[in-house]
Amino acid sequence: MIRILTSVLILLAMIVTTQAAQLRGTGDMGVIIERTTGSVQIIETTNQTSLARIEGLGDLSHASIVYSRDERFAYVFGRDGGLSKIDLLTQKLTKRIMQAGNSIGGAISDDGKLIAVSNYKPGGVKIFNADTLELVANIPAIYGADNDLSKTVGLVDAPGSRFIFTLYDAGEIWVADCSKCLAGKSPEITKMKDIGLQPYDGLISSDGRYYIAGLFGEDGMSMVDLWQDKLSARRILDGYGRGEKKLPVYKMPHLEGWAQAADSFYLPAVGHHQVLIVDAKTFKQTGSIDVHGQPIFVMARPDGRQIWVNFAHPRNDTIQVIDVPSGKIIKEFKPGKAVLHMEFTPRGEQLWMSVRDENRINVYDTRTLEKITSLPAKTPSGIFFTWRAGRIGL
Amino acid sequence: MIRILTSVLILLAMIVTTQAAQLRGTGDMGVIIERTTGSVQIIETTNQTSLARIEGLGDLSHASIVYSRDERFAYVFGRDGGLSKIDLLTQKLTKRIMQAGNSIGGAISDDGKLIAVSNYKPGGVKIFNADTLELVANIPAIYGADNDLSKTVGLVDAPGSRFIFTLYDAGEIWVADCSKCLAGKSPEITKMKDIGLQPYDGLISSDGRYYIAGLFGEDGMSMVDLWQDKLSARRILDGYGRGEKKLPVYKMPHLEGWAQAADSFYLPAVGHHQVLIVDAKTFKQTGSIDVHGQPIFVMARPDGRQIWVNFAHPRNDTIQVIDVPSGKIIKEFKPGKAVLHMEFTPRGEQLWMSVRDENRINVYDTRTLEKITSLPAKTPSGIFFTWRAGRIGL
Repeated sequence: MIRILTSVLILLAMIVTTQAAQLRGTGDMGVIIERTTGSVQIIETTNQTSLARIEGLGDLSHASIVYSRDERFAYVFGRDGGLSKIDLLTQKLTKRIMQAGNSIGGAISDDGKLIAVSNYKPGGVKIFNADTLELVANIPAIYGADNDLSKTVGLVDAPGSRFIFTLYDAGEIWVADCSKCLAGKSPEITKMKDIGLQPYDGLISSDGRYYIAGLFGEDGMSMVDLWQDKLSARRILDGYGRGEKKLPVYKMPHLEGWAQAADSFYLPAVGHHQVLIVDAKTFKQTGSIDVHGQPIFVMARPDGRQIWVNFAHPRNDTIQVIDVPSGKIIKEFKPGKAVLHMEFTPRGEQLWMSVRDENRINVYDTRTLEKITSLPAKTPSGIFFTWRAGRIGL
Repeated sequence: MIRILTSVLILLAMIVTTQAAQLRGTGDMGVIIERTTGSVQIIETTNQTSLARIEGLGDLSHASIVYSRDERFAYVFGRDGGLSKIDLLTQKLTKRIMQAGNSIGGAISDDGKLIAVSNYKPGGVKIFNADTLELVANIPAIYGADNDLSKTVGLVDAPGSRFIFTLYDAGEIWVADCSKCLAGKSPEITKMKDIGLQPYDGLISSDGRYYIAGLFGEDGMSMVDLWQDKLSARRILDGYGRGEKKLPVYKMPHLEGWAQAADSFYLPAVGHHQVLIVDAKTFKQTGSIDVHGQPIFVMARPDGRQIWVNFAHPRNDTIQVIDVPSGKIIKEFKPGKAVLHMEFTPRGEQLWMSVRDENRINVYDTRTLEKITSLPAKTPSGIFFTWRAGRIGL
């Protein structure tokens, strides 16, 4: 009997220990995409450690992540149409569905109840119940006289359970109000047509007011002020795009790579070795900063005092840090081959960086600009921290 | 033996159940001050429920709260000099110290390692290790030829482990750089003198760049641009203050009651039934909105589209909601006696409100402006959600 009791007590102790290990706040956690192995790592930023790896997530090239409003669950949007829900606390895959043949990006509604995914094949946007991943609404991106289906890109959330996206093939911006979707109603769609050729990406300002689409087919961008009574798109930043092409464009910069700091946007020039400065109120260019290569991500530290920039191949081994008040580059260093993505902690004292071809994550102290530590990772790309749960459009 | 085994298994099941109940993300949690009973409630905003009450926290009039960077622990700053650390997951008081005789407000450093508390008696600021609550640094607010001790107010954090506060009696603003305090070094103090008479409160802009002190002893305010190489204060908003006093001032508005929305600050006029609109770049007044009473808190929904306003006694039973684009009041309602504090969820779809004299918390849907639910609470005052952990200056 004593032996049985001992076994039970050991079991009990194990369970308590396991549970205790998982009993933790989720505000300092994050997930890192491991691109070629279809896996992710769960990390925490207080002691800068890796907590777990979760595998079996399919094709994660260009994968992205959003978080549940309690910061417990991560939703991973794969390139192969996979949508995976991960539990950061039990460190397990909670559910995984294949919702399309080829997809790019997703969003979570402001109330945390809906997940939207943007699809290439078939075109359109699908909306799921965030708890169960059951389909709630399907929005085929039908356009033109022939009822063609368009690829959708630049999907973001906006206040009021709305999702906004662009139709690449159609040159349209759509706003889907899904505030009654869970009550069984179809989303109300507002369409803006003829917004420009081949809108390839989109972003929303951090207050959820302005939606901006980048155009691959012409110079300039298209902007919607979502506070208007009757929604319409207007042209901004003429000359921003493929333009004069003095240099070959290795990669169109992602619009998530725009930064806002001190009343201006800082954005990657297309094809040029420059960061452009644009007034955040008028959307007119007010200056530029010469940099090391074609910028990809131009990331502002949360206080807007520093801007960190990475570059397109073949200059993607280098990082430059810009001091915003002076507009000067205060630091240049070479973290290693293929610096793909950067993420700040929410108050900006740390920056995490994926160095894909060296299978490493570097962590920096943004005050001293010195490296704090490195963590091993398999071909890391995107880095996403849980603070995104509380922000509009991320 | 079977009886013993059964007992053990029941115990085991109880432990697992208890642990499982606490295994939860912390991104949707919050703490509500129960003013007269020295207690707090822990709540969650996904299903809008109360999870626990913690008692024995001393005098909580004018109490405030900051959160650890993992959003697991809340630090409660009491009026009686008490500093309490609460675990939101085990729902227990982790530690409580009496650090002064009379204090007002506190802050947590951007790296989450330091807690600072602002004291009336004795004057000055004390800085503690956030893990252990051990004293790390003591900053007596000594001023003038006679080495008097000043009350300190308006304490906030700024990037780089800095704390900023004003000396009420001395008319000074001090910046304490505590980035080496945990290594045993004293904080480096930068003092700005003659900033104005009786600075009674302070705030820092959401990017951590501008610190603004309100003046009780004269009209106008004092502002420091923390991006300057050599710090100095300059006067802004001449005429903002006790001023002409056409109406008796029942209560000087807290500066945390300022809101930023769409390139402007919205702030409570002192003594007048108005919300003032001030350009966020030039700090010049550009307009005003007539409201129901003397405004206390002027709170912007996180997207800046709406402003919610409460009022000083005797008009503190009423709330007005301003639509920012039109500048019009779109809703007025009477939640009950003594509406003291309001808090938005981080993406703004809910607003929580304490109705002190009715012992209730009301929760509103900010889209429909309808009440979602009410929760009982004992004389509730301040409401603080965990999203504050990731913001500068909150």
